[in-house]
Amino acid sequence: MLSFSLVLVVENLGKRTLIISYCKLTFTVTSLQVTFKASRYSVSPDLRFVLLAYDVKQVFHSSYTASYVIYNIHTREVWELNPPEVEDSVLQYAAWGVHGQQLIYIFENNIYYQPDVKSSSLRLTSSGKEGIIFNGIADWLYEEELLHSHIAHWWSPDGERLAFLTINDSLVPNMVIPRFTGGLYPKGKQYPYPKAGQTNPTVKLFVVNLYGPAHTLELMPPDSFKSREYYITMVKWISNTKAVVRWLNRAQNISILTVCETTTGACTRKYEMQSDLWLPKQNEEPVFSEDGSKFFMTVPVKQGGRGEFHHIAMFIVQAKSEQISVRHLTSGNWEVIKILAYDENTQKIYFLSTEESPRGRQLHSVSTVGSLNRQCLSCNFFREQCTYFSAKFSPMNRHFLLHCKGPGVPVVSVHKTSDTAKFYILENNPVLKEVVSKKKNYKTEIKMLHVEDYEFPLQLSLPRDFTDRNQYALLLIIDEAPGSQLVTDKFHIDWDSVLVNSDNVIVARFDGRGSGFQGLKILQEVHRCLGSVEVKDQIAAVESLLKQPFIDPKRLGIFGKGYGGYITSMILKSSEHLFKCGAVVAPITDMKLYASAFSERYLGIPSKDEITYQASSVLHNLHGLKEVDLLIVHGTADAKVHFQHSAELIKRLIKAGANYTMQIYPDEGHNIASEKSKYHLYSTILGFFSACLKEETPILPQEPEEDE
Amino acid sequence: MLSFSLVLVVENLGKRTLIISYCKLTFTVTSLQVTFKASRYSVSPDLRFVLLAYDVKQVFHSSYTASYVIYNIHTREVWELNPPEVEDSVLQYAAWGVHGQQLIYIFENNIYYQPDVKSSSLRLTSSGKEGIIFNGIADWLYEEELLHSHIAHWWSPDGERLAFLTINDSLVPNMVIPRFTGGLYPKGKQYPYPKAGQTNPTVKLFVVNLYGPAHTLELMPPDSFKSREYYITMVKWISNTKAVVRWLNRAQNISILTVCETTTGACTRKYEMQSDLWLPKQNEEPVFSEDGSKFFMTVPVKQGGRGEFHHIAMFIVQAKSEQISVRHLTSGNWEVIKILAYDENTQKIYFLSTEESPRGRQLHSVSTVGSLNRQCLSCNFFREQCTYFSAKFSPMNRHFLLHCKGPGVPVVSVHKTSDTAKFYILENNPVLKEVVSKKKNYKTEIKMLHVEDYEFPLQLSLPRDFTDRNQYALLLIIDEAPGSQLVTDKFHIDWDSVLVNSDNVIVARFDGRGSGFQGLKILQEVHRCLGSVEVKDQIAAVESLLKQPFIDPKRLGIFGKGYGGYITSMILKSSEHLFKCGAVVAPITDMKLYASAFSERYLGIPSKDEITYQASSVLHNLHGLKEVDLLIVHGTADAKVHFQHSAELIKRLIKAGANYTMQIYPDEGHNIASEKSKYHLYSTILGFFSACLKEETPILPQEPEEDE
Repeated sequence: MLSFSLVLVVENLGKRTLIISYCKLTFTVTSLQVTFKASRYSVSPDLRFVLLAYDVKQVFHSSYTASYVIYNIHTREVWELNPPEVEDSVLQYAAWGVHGQQLIYIFENNIYYQPDVKSSSLRLTSSGKEGIIFNGIADWLYEEELLHSHIAHWWSPDGERLAFLTINDSLVPNMVIPRFTGGLYPKGKQYPYPKAGQTNPTVKLFVVNLYGPAHTLELMPPDSFKSREYYITMVKWISNTKAVVRWLNRAQNISILTVCETTTGACTRKYEMQSDLWLPKQNEEPVFSEDGSKFFMTVPVKQGGRGEFHHIAMFIVQAKSEQISVRHLTSGNWEVIKILAYDENTQKIYFLSTEESPRGRQLHSVSTVGSLNRQCLSCNFFREQCTYFSAKFSPMNRHFLLHCKGPGVPVVSVHKTSDTAKFYILENNPVLKEVVSKKKNYKTEIKMLHVEDYEFPLQLSLPRDFTDRNQYALLLIIDEAPGSQLVTDKFHIDWDSVLVNSDNVIVARFDGRGSGFQGLKILQEVHRCLGSVEVKDQIAAVESLLKQPFIDPKRLGIFGKGYGGYITSMILKSSEHLFKCGAVVAPITDMKLYASAFSERYLGIPSKDEITYQASSVLHNLHGLKEVDLLIVHGTADAKVHFQHSAELIKRLIKAGANYTMQIYPDEGHNIASEKSKYHLYSTILGFFSACLKEETPILPQEPEEDE
Repeated sequence: MLSFSLVLVVENLGKRTLIISYCKLTFTVTSLQVTFKASRYSVSPDLRFVLLAYDVKQVFHSSYTASYVIYNIHTREVWELNPPEVEDSVLQYAAWGVHGQQLIYIFENNIYYQPDVKSSSLRLTSSGKEGIIFNGIADWLYEEELLHSHIAHWWSPDGERLAFLTINDSLVPNMVIPRFTGGLYPKGKQYPYPKAGQTNPTVKLFVVNLYGPAHTLELMPPDSFKSREYYITMVKWISNTKAVVRWLNRAQNISILTVCETTTGACTRKYEMQSDLWLPKQNEEPVFSEDGSKFFMTVPVKQGGRGEFHHIAMFIVQAKSEQISVRHLTSGNWEVIKILAYDENTQKIYFLSTEESPRGRQLHSVSTVGSLNRQCLSCNFFREQCTYFSAKFSPMNRHFLLHCKGPGVPVVSVHKTSDTAKFYILENNPVLKEVVSKKKNYKTEIKMLHVEDYEFPLQLSLPRDFTDRNQYALLLIIDEAPGSQLVTDKFHIDWDSVLVNSDNVIVARFDGRGSGFQGLKILQEVHRCLGSVEVKDQIAAVESLLKQPFIDPKRLGIFGKGYGGYITSMILKSSEHLFKCGAVVAPITDMKLYASAFSERYLGIPSKDEITYQASSVLHNLHGLKEVDLLIVHGTADAKVHFQHSAELIKRLIKAGANYTMQIYPDEGHNIASEKSKYHLYSTILGFFSACLKEETPILPQEPEEDE
């Protein structure tokens, strides 16, 4: 019985199965004498057809274009998916709906719908214009900084309605990404990219009725937002006709959660949040009870002197008055990471939290009634090996997939919710386990450091033969995003392990102010002073390490990518002679050149005098950068952190007569994705640090040459 | 008397005076409370006004845009030069005519004329379109590869007529030069650039009558060119109504010299040249006698087994039949470089030649009558210090400026033609002389090397303390253009002298096949095999040097820029383990990506199979480049050798997993012109070679560390 429900779970999860099983499925379909290598696939809800994508081309972080074929599992018939009167189309998106063979796809920024695989397509929108008006799909800003997905449409549970965003970029300035290779006259590409303070896209939310005559209705923003700039950060269906929507003002300090009646377009305000700083977690989807009378969401709750932490609140909608009362279900100096499910029968909430440790994630349940009895469901599961979990519940909450992500080798298991001790292991990665036990020659240590009034975790990866009577070089690795976390129990092997294993280097990771999951106070200390407190804390961590006898103070290196490259540069600027060398990959060098939604969240909208922005820029007072052995790496087609950032930095370094090393990857993006480039990148970085951090060999004084 | 005529000479030479005196004049003009720093100026033919350029911005190699003011020398009045109804204009060109205050300027690719400084402007053309149709000014191809000047118009001697080219680029593909710095959304620039085999611009030659009603007449190409693609490579007025024009077919192996009657537009064919290879010296201006009955020009003349050399031919036009007879005035295994003047009274031709040495340039005269008595005028002038001259004759040929360019410190003198021993020294650079005698610590040696059937010159710069009992590193410097010459008697100090002076490096320069001024056979051996014979000869030169005991075979370096970077790369590809390191600046890496007029001259128009082009490309079989320490330098805004060349090379090196170092100069062009970038470039190259070529110090074996 379990194995059968498992199959269903796996099917329902679609692409997620690939992640679970650590393997890649490749369909090879021969149709009309053409062989496609389809690297992505999904099965129709009625399990009769497969949608296969081929010629997949990455656009931005998660978006891609592809061509599609539909494969009939029973007849083995194959045909192409094309908009009416278009051949060999390249689509921006295509996927099954929620019932039968419902299918939607996006072509030239318009949404098309097919009730079944053989019926003709219905174009649901007509306003789409390439690079200007986006229907159902995100523009760069929404994909990268707001939705964290390129998908900007949402099916109602019954498949009768589709909610979608229309993002209008017509007034947003375009950025040009040059192209250098692959032709006699390579053409660049331009796309709307609002930099800090520039015109943002405007957004509207529509719902289209798919059964019967197509009918599109706009869901209106709250009155207080109507004449202001705002983002839509979350849309979720809570019944067949109702959707919950979160609206966030441009300054990102006022957010309004509404429930919208999609038959009328009316939206009712359910909860408003405000902050003196900015509002985090704006993508969080509230979990509703089936009848909609209750919903659950995390909200910041003050925990004494240690500031606010995210905890679960239950919002109860009074049937008659529509007034809402709140009950807090959890509290403490720890964070609720994610609400996973609400079980109507047991009236329990399932969630992930950091209750046991800020570096771990454990699955808990909490009763929504009575004494709010809280229970850890994952704490005893492979206790030695597993303290960092994620989980996914089956539609009826009777089973859940538990994904142990570390500190040991990952394990994926299916559990019965009513008896979590009953489980079935899907994957325990024996091959990886063996490789790790053979090759990973280092141990990891976490120390708590006291900086100003905080305790911050410092993680050290120490060479196997480590002894504190020797002296070692140190490499400090900086986090890639503010609000993120480097020191966790997650299993993780990266390029830096080579330095620990082979070059006797100690690698350090440190989460100071600005890092996430340790309460809002730590997270939000960077407000209006990005690139300042993070820098102070990282330097404090290194200085505290230098008190240890086993660190060679002459051999310190530092590395960061993106925002991490930014912090790395700021650290090198303000810590003369501390580091011997630093490497930055795709560094942000000026927040004014970066995305509006990011820069404005931390630094506000640039004012005329721009003191906040200037103070946070790498490009002024480069003195510290002149004294260090610096490696700058950037892909010239980086659509996230434009090559412009490195170009401005290099121009100023040249002006200042500074020495540095650089490596550019022609026509590569932010992630330097091609296999060969990635390999080259890692060799470059490893070679750089290996040379810089190696012990200096005493040089034999040269003997005076004698004449023969 | 001499001093007065000198003043006139200096005035007539316009900008050239700046070169003669090695100083820069800067006018600072205050007008309407604005202070301009005018870096370029010229005086009107009537000596009453000065035309001053400010806000000068380089476009391509010689072209620039600027704004202009006119300054009345007597009243000190100043006003701006603007097209009608345009304010604060930026012009592509502005200059005085030949009489009075005649003035023309070019704005938005159209030519404007003013009879005097106060009269209103007359627009002479209206077809001009920015980046598409160019009137009187060259497009990129004509400026860089055909005219070697941005000026594409020519005044008749009496100032009554103006000949000008109309260059139509409407079908020429555009190249995009990205821009990275200097703004939130930096915009690239595009301009027509025909790569090998792509559509070329079409060209027409017009003459406009400036006195009386403006009247424009097209000068028609020779009949045989009418339906073919051709270039116009030279236009010169030979009387007030006649101009001589050279037309060259696209393959550059048929050239027709015509004399055009500008009152009718009829052009008469005077001389046709053909070649199985390509025709060099197509910019050469023939020198006409006043009555037009004779003209002088260099033509290739076969000199036994050593092939053809350029020598002066006198063409005599038979008065009645219009038939032309030829008399050769010079001959020998040496080249006539330039015909400078024809003196009607003495019936003598003045010219520069390599008669004394292919590395020198001496001023000679040859009689055009009788026994063609030839005389060297410069051979005894500062004999020790001067063997490389250029010269410029005064309008009546009664004086000439003699510019000794080496091997000693340059000297500029004015001579009486009738008695060359009577001279006046304008500049003998005493300051430079002193610096050189103090700082230049190396000596230069020339050896002749025998390669295949040729004798080629090899120049070595040897450190002061050079002794052949020591071993030295060697740096080979490759020439920047085919048909050019590296080993000459010209005075020359460059960055490489630092390596000789301070790093004990021997610098070698070698002119092998493909180099110029040693006859056409050597010059044209590269035809259809560019990147092959040059490479062989350079390697042969190095191998012959390696037979010397004083060269350390483990410390060989090589350097080249542009085409020199191309040859350098080809050498490194085909000489595994010979060189330890190589540096290329703005290297051409594939002739298909380079300008049509250049690539096609040497390799022909690309055919479908493209074997010639593929064989000449750096981008295939990179093996040799993997084994060497390679530095690649490129300005990202290089409009001549696009950054594309280095990007394609880097992409392939990354694919091949090769190591290399790179340095890019954001938004810098081919010449990396800004002061700071230039300084950085030289430090980078010097640092690179200094590190690579230094003697290896024996390393002390590390003692095993003992536990304390």
